[in-house]
Amino acid sequence: MSRFQVLLVAGTHGNEVNAPWLFEQWSETPELINTHAVQLVQVIGNPAALELGRRYLDRDLNRSFRLDLLSSSSSSDREVDRAKELLRLYGPQGDKPCQIAIDLHSTTAAMGNCLVVYGRRSADLALAALIQARLGLPIYLHEGDQDQQGFLVEGWPCGLVIEIGPVPQSLLQACIVEQTRLALEACLESLGKVSSGLLSYPDHLVVHRHLGSLDLPRDASGRPAAIVHPQLQGGDWRPLKAGTPLFLRPDGEVLRFEGQELPVPVFINEAAYFEKHIAMSLTSREVWPLPEALKGALQQLVGF
Amino acid sequence: MSRFQVLLVAGTHGNEVNAPWLFEQWSETPELINTHAVQLVQVIGNPAALELGRRYLDRDLNRSFRLDLLSSSSSSDREVDRAKELLRLYGPQGDKPCQIAIDLHSTTAAMGNCLVVYGRRSADLALAALIQARLGLPIYLHEGDQDQQGFLVEGWPCGLVIEIGPVPQSLLQACIVEQTRLALEACLESLGKVSSGLLSYPDHLVVHRHLGSLDLPRDASGRPAAIVHPQLQGGDWRPLKAGTPLFLRPDGEVLRFEGQELPVPVFINEAAYFEKHIAMSLTSREVWPLPEALKGALQQLVGF
Repeated sequence: MSRFQVLLVAGTHGNEVNAPWLFEQWSETPELINTHAVQLVQVIGNPAALELGRRYLDRDLNRSFRLDLLSSSSSSDREVDRAKELLRLYGPQGDKPCQIAIDLHSTTAAMGNCLVVYGRRSADLALAALIQARLGLPIYLHEGDQDQQGFLVEGWPCGLVIEIGPVPQSLLQACIVEQTRLALEACLESLGKVSSGLLSYPDHLVVHRHLGSLDLPRDASGRPAAIVHPQLQGGDWRPLKAGTPLFLRPDGEVLRFEGQELPVPVFINEAAYFEKHIAMSLTSREVWPLPEALKGALQQLVGF
Repeated sequence: MSRFQVLLVAGTHGNEVNAPWLFEQWSETPELINTHAVQLVQVIGNPAALELGRRYLDRDLNRSFRLDLLSSSSSSDREVDRAKELLRLYGPQGDKPCQIAIDLHSTTAAMGNCLVVYGRRSADLALAALIQARLGLPIYLHEGDQDQQGFLVEGWPCGLVIEIGPVPQSLLQACIVEQTRLALEACLESLGKVSSGLLSYPDHLVVHRHLGSLDLPRDASGRPAAIVHPQLQGGDWRPLKAGTPLFLRPDGEVLRFEGQELPVPVFINEAAYFEKHIAMSLTSREVWPLPEALKGALQQLVGF
């Protein structure tokens, strides 16, 4: 039996309250979640922000795991300090070393139950493929976006985000809690099988590869001049065809998608992305074979 | 023509962003909203909180219009200062005196498009009855709740809240903006007719009278021990029958409604009410006749 440990993080954003609630119940009644004999460390990512019900205090913790920030000797941002602390405590060379990080999030967008991986690290993709084979969850592959860097799970050799929505910020909803638990159990079941060697990988995985993001149309002073069209609201994962309404101006004018390439929109109208100038992101749906080398990376990581 | 003025307030809660956006568009393109020739003053209730995307800074502005707070000479709460300022500027004896206040809100609960009135002031009920006759909106009559006092519209001789949901906090949604506009126009159309005398009142109004509120079940340390049952989520305005699921414990136990009186729940799982220990409020649906004296109160107020 290998000795790898998995870091489970909830409340990386302090206004995403469903996963922290699950942790709380779980700590009182451990049998509520089947851990599949995987060694776990649970932590609240940003407890100070959770206490205040805010996404963050000084800056987004889930954009703070950037090398330049982590290597600076001093920071005025509490989230950068927290990022350093989390790595010191639970990083692969930390006090309680973890090799894999699973970060539990929720969104106001109608993303359903899905996985987010950052870049093309082999172990991440292997783990995502296993969970997808188990539950069918879509995978959003975020990569190549210079404006969005420093995600928490990138601080660990392997990691991914479980993202559930739609749910308002700061609101407990039973179905969101349940979806979080189901995705997490599928993840732990997969990891349990990896470590025991009782595993067959799927032949391929389906990814939605990040192409870029669209902002709301803005006026000369930078204020939004249109909002997400009501027909697009909730339409995450449905390909955009030429002519699909994107935005609605106050005077009733409709701005439509004009491309021909059928991109798949995700994170449509996520409340927290307003400040990031992201009204939605566009992806390309791709079926990728799962090469042996990729499977080996996850096996190696968990020491089997 | 009478000279009454109506105060329109958006952003009384700084994380309810749809009505403020409507104001912004309207200020650029006045013809976007039909004011029905009613004299209007528009104001952002809590601009500092809106800037930060928070419900409030120090205390809920929409619980700060209490006589004891307003009559105190000093306050450490910025919202109490703002309440005094709003009354000094736009109160019935203010610099730009307004006789009627319409306060535009949104909620994470599935309240649809509805009106909230506080207590049984004749002019409020007359105005609500007129809007209900025009659009059919349900009316939530909030009264007799010692824990929830000091609502903004109570600072004016007549006033009501237009409440739209569900929408996450801090999120612009086109359908919420549109519902806000529709309810507001129905309100202004009614007031326009009152002031011109071209009006017939309905014979009755339907109110949902506040009976009390239910909190989440809590454990010995005060933390929630159960959450709103998924079957009840979104079930605002649907009468509770004996046996209707209310709350779900983490272990799967269902807590059910056990009364016989068929109360109608409202504001089920409003995110901002978590801190107020309100998981939902219960109301009694009642059909009230609309006596002449009540109609006269609104006519008198607008000086017709």
